[in-house]
Amino acid sequence: MRFAILATDGRARTGLLETPRGAIRTPAFMPVGTAATVKAMKPGDVRASGADILLGNTYHLMLRPGAERVARLGGLHRFMAWPHPILTDSGGFQVMSLGPLAAVSEEGVAFRSHLDGSKHMLTPERSVAIQRQLGADIVMAFDECTPHPATRDEAARSMALSMRWARRSRRAFEENPGRAALFGIQQGGLYPDLRRESAETLVAIGFEGYAIGGLAVGEGQAAMFEVLDEAPQMLPADRPRYLMGVGKPADIIGAVMRGVDMFDCVLPTRSGRTAQAWTAAGPLNLRNARFAEDEAPLEEGCPCPVCARFSRAYIHHLVKAGEILGAMLLTEHNLWHYQQLMQGLRAAIAAGTLEAFARQRLSALAG
Amino acid sequence: MRFAILATDGRARTGLLETPRGAIRTPAFMPVGTAATVKAMKPGDVRASGADILLGNTYHLMLRPGAERVARLGGLHRFMAWPHPILTDSGGFQVMSLGPLAAVSEEGVAFRSHLDGSKHMLTPERSVAIQRQLGADIVMAFDECTPHPATRDEAARSMALSMRWARRSRRAFEENPGRAALFGIQQGGLYPDLRRESAETLVAIGFEGYAIGGLAVGEGQAAMFEVLDEAPQMLPADRPRYLMGVGKPADIIGAVMRGVDMFDCVLPTRSGRTAQAWTAAGPLNLRNARFAEDEAPLEEGCPCPVCARFSRAYIHHLVKAGEILGAMLLTEHNLWHYQQLMQGLRAAIAAGTLEAFARQRLSALAG
Repeated sequence: MRFAILATDGRARTGLLETPRGAIRTPAFMPVGTAATVKAMKPGDVRASGADILLGNTYHLMLRPGAERVARLGGLHRFMAWPHPILTDSGGFQVMSLGPLAAVSEEGVAFRSHLDGSKHMLTPERSVAIQRQLGADIVMAFDECTPHPATRDEAARSMALSMRWARRSRRAFEENPGRAALFGIQQGGLYPDLRRESAETLVAIGFEGYAIGGLAVGEGQAAMFEVLDEAPQMLPADRPRYLMGVGKPADIIGAVMRGVDMFDCVLPTRSGRTAQAWTAAGPLNLRNARFAEDEAPLEEGCPCPVCARFSRAYIHHLVKAGEILGAMLLTEHNLWHYQQLMQGLRAAIAAGTLEAFARQRLSALAG
Repeated sequence: MRFAILATDGRARTGLLETPRGAIRTPAFMPVGTAATVKAMKPGDVRASGADILLGNTYHLMLRPGAERVARLGGLHRFMAWPHPILTDSGGFQVMSLGPLAAVSEEGVAFRSHLDGSKHMLTPERSVAIQRQLGADIVMAFDECTPHPATRDEAARSMALSMRWARRSRRAFEENPGRAALFGIQQGGLYPDLRRESAETLVAIGFEGYAIGGLAVGEGQAAMFEVLDEAPQMLPADRPRYLMGVGKPADIIGAVMRGVDMFDCVLPTRSGRTAQAWTAAGPLNLRNARFAEDEAPLEEGCPCPVCARFSRAYIHHLVKAGEILGAMLLTEHNLWHYQQLMQGLRAAIAAGTLEAFARQRLSALAG
């Protein structure tokens, strides 16, 4: 995997992350395809929105349909008809979100399936093996997402565990790396010295890319940006930096300005199933009666196929009637909106006009 | 509206029904777009499946979003982004299916909305006015779908009422015909003499096309075919004949051989939302565990975009996981399957090989 930075603007970078399955333009937004589908979207339409890479969820896929089954069926790309790059998470975040169903030890996380209560164990070795079975182009190290709030001691203990797991992930990955890349994940909560220690540990192990984990977990945008004022600079400049689980457009803009290259979030797809349309002025709730006879597209000037054909009035009707097409059209528009934002960020960085671009976008969101 | 019969084979005909919004190849299958959407399908994908015309439901649309609102928004075609022909039903069948919520009188049908209990009245005049507001290319006369079973007296009384309503529908339509066409609906239950009387009454009034109503209501295929052995021949040979609410592929094949030109049915779309895939050998239940690792497409040799990309194993997974994409892909395949059947029927009639085609298709379904 090669990462070529084509231009910088302040701390922001735009580049190309080249994988055997295709290039990823950065800053990149990865739509989430939890259960081997970006919900309510055909893969060709996801691609058409401008997505270069999807995220798949190890936890969901290991339970259903099962990683062995996906492997027997030719891997995740073939299974879901997405021949482009896929990044899989490690499953750690999701099993630890199971609360009382999960128990963390040095070895890994024992948990019960939310589907049928069956017992499972995820370890760094097992997580990497599953991600390799799925056929991920980018494999994530197994880590503990430090909960928020955490005392310094809690954050330090959690980060240290993640670093031991990162080393085990790397070792497991090396046994059978194939053509995939492995990303390490920085932890350390809101504590700059722990973030630095984590970064140094990861760099000493060596990864093809580095994620910033443990943010967007309730700390708020100001605290997140405070971490991002330093954390990306602790990571190698010549490797991609991925901020996990982020976020709203304003979060993404702020993180790109602080040197982040990759993002994933369920927001555009989940919003599409709860009647929300993302626009430059923020989200619209299409359930609102004020849209009942609004002939405008979801967003004026949007180049997406939904805005080219359908009115807010029509989508309001679909939402009120509980029609599947409502979720389909809102999801498609939202994915286009996010990808258009990324395209705008990339172009602004290349042109050296990121600050003006960001100011304009953020003021439209605030207005 | 012009109807050109291009070839016949026995009693079957293939032709072109030309409307200002485009030509309809017959025999034609009309997907059902109840609430201004063919459920789980984008209109461009419905079109790509081979549909020349959709059916819209007056009852659903008058309640939500309301015919006046659709008219203010430029009509149903523009509202749902389907610029091709649309036929609307009269609403009669659906209000009378409301049971105790509906009361039939000479004037029409008083009913309460299944959505909010509000009181409404449908009459021939009101039904035609609503269909004109929606902008239908083909307007259906308001009728009573005679329930099954019905005694001869019940069927006669019901048919006579429908004929009085047919006359009122024609009169209301003439006040503002625009570029639309009006179809009359034959009733008479399973009684050939009543069917003939109904046909003669309708022809005396004069319609641009004729529907055969009151079938597919529980009488079974044998009884339906017995009626269809005669009923189509009672209707003018130079006008399209439309069998309402039919049906399964075997029903359609048998009806085409008996001289029917147009069909509508929720089966392909509804099946798509209940894990069923239509194939030449009949429906498959994709929920069945035997498909969990089946790499074949839904139907071998099917030219649809779903069969080109996705395996039964994948769609089984989507269905089990309750993913919207499962309903989307199954619906799309099913609509292609139906349209491919219609294309096969049209080609066989043109080639004079309908009997062999029908024998082959029916034996595959029975096998």
